[in-house]
Amino acid sequence: MVIMDVYLDNSATTPVCAEAIAAMRTALETTWGNPSSLHKKGLEAEALLEHARAQVARKLRCEAEEIYFTSGGTESNNIALLGAARARFRLGKRVVSTNVEHSSVEESLKRLEAEGFEVLRLPVDGKGRICEEDLGRAITPQTILVSIMSVNNETGTIQPVEAARRAIQLRRSPAWLHCDAVQSFGKLELYPAALGLDMMSVSAHKIHGPKGAGALYLNKNTIKNPKSLARSFGGAQEGGVRAGTQLMPAIAGFGAAVEAIPNTAETLAKMQDLRTHMLDGLRKIGGIALNSPPGALPYVTNISVLGKKGEPLLNYLSGKGVYVSTGSACAKGKPSHVLKAMGLPKERLEGALRISFSRFTTMEDIDRLLRVLAEGKTAVMGK
Amino acid sequence: MVIMDVYLDNSATTPVCAEAIAAMRTALETTWGNPSSLHKKGLEAEALLEHARAQVARKLRCEAEEIYFTSGGTESNNIALLGAARARFRLGKRVVSTNVEHSSVEESLKRLEAEGFEVLRLPVDGKGRICEEDLGRAITPQTILVSIMSVNNETGTIQPVEAARRAIQLRRSPAWLHCDAVQSFGKLELYPAALGLDMMSVSAHKIHGPKGAGALYLNKNTIKNPKSLARSFGGAQEGGVRAGTQLMPAIAGFGAAVEAIPNTAETLAKMQDLRTHMLDGLRKIGGIALNSPPGALPYVTNISVLGKKGEPLLNYLSGKGVYVSTGSACAKGKPSHVLKAMGLPKERLEGALRISFSRFTTMEDIDRLLRVLAEGKTAVMGK
Repeated sequence: MVIMDVYLDNSATTPVCAEAIAAMRTALETTWGNPSSLHKKGLEAEALLEHARAQVARKLRCEAEEIYFTSGGTESNNIALLGAARARFRLGKRVVSTNVEHSSVEESLKRLEAEGFEVLRLPVDGKGRICEEDLGRAITPQTILVSIMSVNNETGTIQPVEAARRAIQLRRSPAWLHCDAVQSFGKLELYPAALGLDMMSVSAHKIHGPKGAGALYLNKNTIKNPKSLARSFGGAQEGGVRAGTQLMPAIAGFGAAVEAIPNTAETLAKMQDLRTHMLDGLRKIGGIALNSPPGALPYVTNISVLGKKGEPLLNYLSGKGVYVSTGSACAKGKPSHVLKAMGLPKERLEGALRISFSRFTTMEDIDRLLRVLAEGKTAVMGK
Repeated sequence: MVIMDVYLDNSATTPVCAEAIAAMRTALETTWGNPSSLHKKGLEAEALLEHARAQVARKLRCEAEEIYFTSGGTESNNIALLGAARARFRLGKRVVSTNVEHSSVEESLKRLEAEGFEVLRLPVDGKGRICEEDLGRAITPQTILVSIMSVNNETGTIQPVEAARRAIQLRRSPAWLHCDAVQSFGKLELYPAALGLDMMSVSAHKIHGPKGAGALYLNKNTIKNPKSLARSFGGAQEGGVRAGTQLMPAIAGFGAAVEAIPNTAETLAKMQDLRTHMLDGLRKIGGIALNSPPGALPYVTNISVLGKKGEPLLNYLSGKGVYVSTGSACAKGKPSHVLKAMGLPKERLEGALRISFSRFTTMEDIDRLLRVLAEGKTAVMGK
């Protein structure tokens, strides 16, 4: 009898869907030309590239020319933060963000501070949410960039990104608004134009696409010289925003994965059911605190098993074929700055586990998690 | 009857070999975990990542920890040039390179100049080669970085990289020596330690690997703080040199493609035969000038069809299923700065075609090229 593994670490990465694999196979076996080549093999590859761009743009309800392919979420965030702030330093030196951003945003903020930018990180409440009034006070006419994540990767907390646009307008700030939407893309109805965004980062491998492709949306009405944001230099690919031969098989897979995303609202409802079922089960096990707020995106649930440490529990679960994480994969081993920012006590930080769903997660997966977690809670020694 | 296309643009990109496709398939279907995840799916992916690193290191006869995966040649060159120069600016502001480098090096040099670095670009002779004496004169104790490509991507000219190491030692310069080996990797016996290199850039998609992966070799004996070269910020992946989830399927394909490279000397001899056969044929056609020097890497041959323009010829050939280029794919449409640096007259620049082989190129491919080129020379109108 084969017992299938239960993968509940979809915020770290997701299994690659059949549609993406098929598109990559075509890109590898047939359409392997260089999209910059002028001959037929090049033109075919260019057509595939532009097809993928159209697929992503359609999902974001933006224009294809507003999509710039990158190698992933980190690169998109780096361009949006470092590229934009440096391109705009003459307008002001103030950058506003939060203290619960992904490391690719936080590390960019640190670089900007080292270069003389004044970075204001908004604090979050016990739910991991920034306060809209803080946002209003933080943004000034000297603010050139506001970067706020859509959904937190560790807790699923949804940030009031739309409030940032209102605050920018109210304060007559020239700030560009960037949103790291890596965790919400494909899971929430999220359209950059409707949200009033200037920039938005998305990644393929969080939505059942391959690792190695991401995109940065750049609003063509407000960002007149996208090339000024460039952080890589060489050929004129991607409108000069990202030099280097396009990462084709991954980009083709990205496009196909985006197109394969099913109805957002229906999947969200299914995730809500899974989450409710899981929370019921966790309550029955007992001794488990819920770190994610009630209004969190149901795909991501952060818990603390009281009196236990996260890593031995993770290892126990892994040994039983159930895969969860202790936090962000990009912060391997480090204690969570997100839970800390929420004011959780040390014990809760140490015992934190993140359980993250995808549209392929089933009730059976949850039942298996609950069973193994209940066992693990007894089997794993306390601290 | 199916007539197979003849692909002779292998310096732009190469068809992906079966070994690379198989490795990517495994990475996509089975080993799709995030290498930074602590559970079994993550550990499996990490093992695959380290397997690929060992494959590349073995080929370069260096240690696995000296290999840093990037998204490709452009990113490797950007890190080597911008990362290294900025990390070392306290030691001096002088950078030495050549005027025939790939755009990813040349554009990096321009950035460095804008930041106050003094960049010296060595000129080349009619063969496209820099002069060893120039190198000796150019390098001073204030030189912090020397970047010289191994093989030119447009002409196949081989540069005297080893002379740069000698000059650095002779002039008691603290300079790090970087080599863009994208076009020579897998084609020449090229070992960074033997060449005295501090940094070396290679790319997967020029050696029948996928687009989306490259590597930067960093000599661990001379580069003590690789992280100081970083140009992307976020997670601690790749020793902090390149943040962001590793581009796994492409990296797995890269490793497999490297391992699949056959005996270098034997393939080189085969390429020499192909080249000799082609040059004989071109001579018979007549009215064609050879822009590549006699000692060029036989994989790359640059010619000019006198009295014709390159692009219409390329299009004619493409229509007949024969694919060549007018120059670098990363300089789409622009006149060649390489041929210009070699002092070729305008007519030769305009009529330039690059024919580039791979180990899969056959004598039949060459015969087909010669046949179609002879037709094209008559069919395509002059200027």
